[in-house]
Amino acid sequence: MKGYAIGIDYGTNSCRSLLVDLSDGRELGSKVFPYPSGEAGILTDPADPNVARQNPQDYIDGLVDTITGAISQAKAADSNFNVEKVVGIGVDTTGSTVIPVDASGTPLALDKKFQGNLNAHVWLWKDHTAHAEAAAITEKAAELRPEYLAKCGGTYSSEWWWSKIWRLQKIDPEVFVAAHSFVEHCDYIPALLTGNTDPGALKRGVCSAGHKAMYNAGWGGLPDKEFLTKLDPALADLRDRLFDVAVPANQLAGGLTEKWASKLGLKPGTAVAVGAFDAHMGAVGAGIKEGTLVKILGTSTCDCMVTPNKRELPDIPGLCGIVDGSILPGYYGLEAGQSAVGDIFLWFVNNFVPDSYGETIDEKFANMEAKLAAMKPGATGLLALDWNNGNRTILVDVQLSGLILGQTLHTEAHEIYRALIEATAFGALTIIKRIEDYGVPVNEVINTGGLAVKNETLMQIYADILGKPLKVSASEQTCALGAALFGAAASGRLTLEDAQAKCCQVRERVYEPISENQVIYERLYALYRTLHDAFGTSGWDGRLDRVMKDLIAIRAETRLSS
Amino acid sequence: MKGYAIGIDYGTNSCRSLLVDLSDGRELGSKVFPYPSGEAGILTDPADPNVARQNPQDYIDGLVDTITGAISQAKAADSNFNVEKVVGIGVDTTGSTVIPVDASGTPLALDKKFQGNLNAHVWLWKDHTAHAEAAAITEKAAELRPEYLAKCGGTYSSEWWWSKIWRLQKIDPEVFVAAHSFVEHCDYIPALLTGNTDPGALKRGVCSAGHKAMYNAGWGGLPDKEFLTKLDPALADLRDRLFDVAVPANQLAGGLTEKWASKLGLKPGTAVAVGAFDAHMGAVGAGIKEGTLVKILGTSTCDCMVTPNKRELPDIPGLCGIVDGSILPGYYGLEAGQSAVGDIFLWFVNNFVPDSYGETIDEKFANMEAKLAAMKPGATGLLALDWNNGNRTILVDVQLSGLILGQTLHTEAHEIYRALIEATAFGALTIIKRIEDYGVPVNEVINTGGLAVKNETLMQIYADILGKPLKVSASEQTCALGAALFGAAASGRLTLEDAQAKCCQVRERVYEPISENQVIYERLYALYRTLHDAFGTSGWDGRLDRVMKDLIAIRAETRLSS
Repeated sequence: MKGYAIGIDYGTNSCRSLLVDLSDGRELGSKVFPYPSGEAGILTDPADPNVARQNPQDYIDGLVDTITGAISQAKAADSNFNVEKVVGIGVDTTGSTVIPVDASGTPLALDKKFQGNLNAHVWLWKDHTAHAEAAAITEKAAELRPEYLAKCGGTYSSEWWWSKIWRLQKIDPEVFVAAHSFVEHCDYIPALLTGNTDPGALKRGVCSAGHKAMYNAGWGGLPDKEFLTKLDPALADLRDRLFDVAVPANQLAGGLTEKWASKLGLKPGTAVAVGAFDAHMGAVGAGIKEGTLVKILGTSTCDCMVTPNKRELPDIPGLCGIVDGSILPGYYGLEAGQSAVGDIFLWFVNNFVPDSYGETIDEKFANMEAKLAAMKPGATGLLALDWNNGNRTILVDVQLSGLILGQTLHTEAHEIYRALIEATAFGALTIIKRIEDYGVPVNEVINTGGLAVKNETLMQIYADILGKPLKVSASEQTCALGAALFGAAASGRLTLEDAQAKCCQVRERVYEPISENQVIYERLYALYRTLHDAFGTSGWDGRLDRVMKDLIAIRAETRLSS
Repeated sequence: MKGYAIGIDYGTNSCRSLLVDLSDGRELGSKVFPYPSGEAGILTDPADPNVARQNPQDYIDGLVDTITGAISQAKAADSNFNVEKVVGIGVDTTGSTVIPVDASGTPLALDKKFQGNLNAHVWLWKDHTAHAEAAAITEKAAELRPEYLAKCGGTYSSEWWWSKIWRLQKIDPEVFVAAHSFVEHCDYIPALLTGNTDPGALKRGVCSAGHKAMYNAGWGGLPDKEFLTKLDPALADLRDRLFDVAVPANQLAGGLTEKWASKLGLKPGTAVAVGAFDAHMGAVGAGIKEGTLVKILGTSTCDCMVTPNKRELPDIPGLCGIVDGSILPGYYGLEAGQSAVGDIFLWFVNNFVPDSYGETIDEKFANMEAKLAAMKPGATGLLALDWNNGNRTILVDVQLSGLILGQTLHTEAHEIYRALIEATAFGALTIIKRIEDYGVPVNEVINTGGLAVKNETLMQIYADILGKPLKVSASEQTCALGAALFGAAASGRLTLEDAQAKCCQVRERVYEPISENQVIYERLYALYRTLHDAFGTSGWDGRLDRVMKDLIAIRAETRLSS
């Protein structure tokens, strides 16, 4: 029997819907809603560049606009489309994006009293005001609860749940006291749609809880009160008003209320799935399964893997997170990532590529890619570290920075660009090696994101460096697609696995590693790894005097063989 | 009594004359003669980019054109000028620039038979075809005569005398056999002017002999036959047709011949000084004396120091040369240098500075300098190594390359430019520290060359990093001025010291170190030195994990204090 599902993907600046035919993954409708508040949806504070807040009303308005829009499109696109057959809704959001709510679960920012107060608004993932709190949490956990850190890469971030809540408690006690509880954005939307916003009762997703709130069923859920008291008694107090259990996103948050069904033009009782983060649902939309790493290749990357939760899995140092059920139910979800990839290329093209390569950014990229596509690995004689925005995985250190070496008086911009692409690929390989070193084999990589679709030169370099076949997801909206699949699974009509099998496709072109390039890149990676360990770890005890000479030797061999 | 002298400075692409009033250094006439042969005076081989030869006829034509031109200008400029009162002529040239000559001392290339053969022409300093021979000489000397290497930085260069002669012997035996002997360009011109070209009798300068031909009175002149035989018996054989003694450039090469006096419009018998290299005569023209380092700040640098030859001087590892009398008679001449300085800035501006900084190279430099002049030391968070063209002093290693680290996603072009300026200054400081570590104190630095005159921002950064007052030579033609002073000294009319005292002036503006900047640069230099030793030496055994973090800490402090 025919069925459809709707996914809603809440990004940083806008949200988008996707209406999918569950028999084949056909995308019948999709609408984008740019958040109207602030600057591109972000409420900022001129006095502090770390502040990034959002207006929860934007989320609510976006829900109506994008879903009704997608339904209209589907009706126009396919006369056989029947809105009655929409069986489920799934939701993904950014995170940790934390909403202070009152006892009814209503965001404080919707209360007139707090409309002018940024602290009562949503604390967006990229709000970095809580760095001192993050450092204090890391320090205390390292001392008292090292197991907490072991599951989140060894360092608790200013972007995460407890840092933000603690910061609010310190800087704005009035709002903190007014906040009966706190809800992740991805949990709030399903709660709203199902009329179950009571903070003590609403369904919490294990994805956000496990990756950002140090939730783990193994140690009894959220951090214990004794530990929280050591941070601040107010946090220990709050624990009772948060939650005890968090569940995977294929579970049902509830059925669509009459009110929301009428607003959206859907059937009351339509299944609404528990929410999760965009990257994780994106991994599902891209077709993640055991052995397949899904990489979202954008301004930064997010790398997702799953491994069965029936097997023993050791802590993997340096991964951003290991959470049972956070990506697929029945599997540990592993999350890693690089803090800048496309952003490094944009930084370079915007600041260092002369107009001789073209007048626009796109022309500059295209001309550089044409030039470097003709070069062999090693021909630049260059090596770079991809740390312009720190290192998220495996070093988890924001105090690292970029490095380029091997320049002569003849080095040109497209050569540096190639070295930067290679550096990001070496960074990606470092993540894969770390995962494999701990017993989780990576057989193939499915890529999503702008770079994967647009940059064939980059994709071939990545294949040569990673030494794995690289596929590209057919959908350009894998996050929303994944959300829709969770909606379908929550309806009980089919399993998540079946939904993936029917709806997740890859493009025809697969990037296979070229063995002669692999041989050179193995040598270059050894040099990269030397630099990586020398500058990035405190235990390194090696030598660097061969690095420049080896690069010259590799360059000379490459030129001879051309 | 009034007196004048003429200096002729043979550069890479042209030669120039300078006619100087010896009572006050006033420059009465100067003419440039671009070499007409080849590409900007250089004969190249499309099949081998290492080939760089010159036509000796260009030197002869330039002699006439530039000297007669300067005399005409002097007459026009000053009605009191009397050409009869030109007492001496001095000559400086590039080197090691080696001329194969026949038994009469005539360059083979002037013989019709060899006019089409590049190997019979002058082997210009920057000819790099003899790298294999240089490596073999270094290896053999390290094994058998380490004292030879100790005086020339530990590595014999492909740019130097024996490498080139040996290369010729290997690749073109016909020319090698036809060459009765070989003469440095700087020795050939005085020989020509004084009618004394007999290779066995012409005066050889100790500057070229000592710095490039491993000549040292202490070990009996040129390398001994036993050693040369180990390289090739043909070189040992040649030794008898070279020279036994080399002398400082304040000595008389001879008197101007009737023929040349008439060609040039000077008195027959006018004193002609022994020749020397451009940088060394430039140091004299800039006013070198004990305690004063003269730095020629151009595309590369040459750093010259003198220290009395009455004192014991240990070998100083990594200096390009230590030669008794090579700069000033009675002093050891110490030569060091950086293989790229202005060339690094040109490479950067030509390849990596977007047009938003300006349409032309000059505009780009000017705008970058305006921006970085407003920054404090440490504010970029960047650190670079100045090795894009290898390292000449103190590492003497062509297989080193450039490095930049500390980049974020916000780093801009002018910040990299500042880091590159700082890197070259740190390289300069490393040279000074090495010289001082071996007991030769540097009290002040006199700078010459385009950058010293044009770039005030750079000069202040240099003063802050070197921690010494930086002066700038008043003359923009210090090489030709120095040559003229040697001509004057050779006439016996006054000593070289007196001539310097009368003619060498510095500009009014002295760049004094700013102490608050010095404090920051001392910390940055420690980091530079860590990178320098880590990548440039084989004995290093340290740690790098603090480098990026310390740069971030310094940047943060700098911003706080702004």
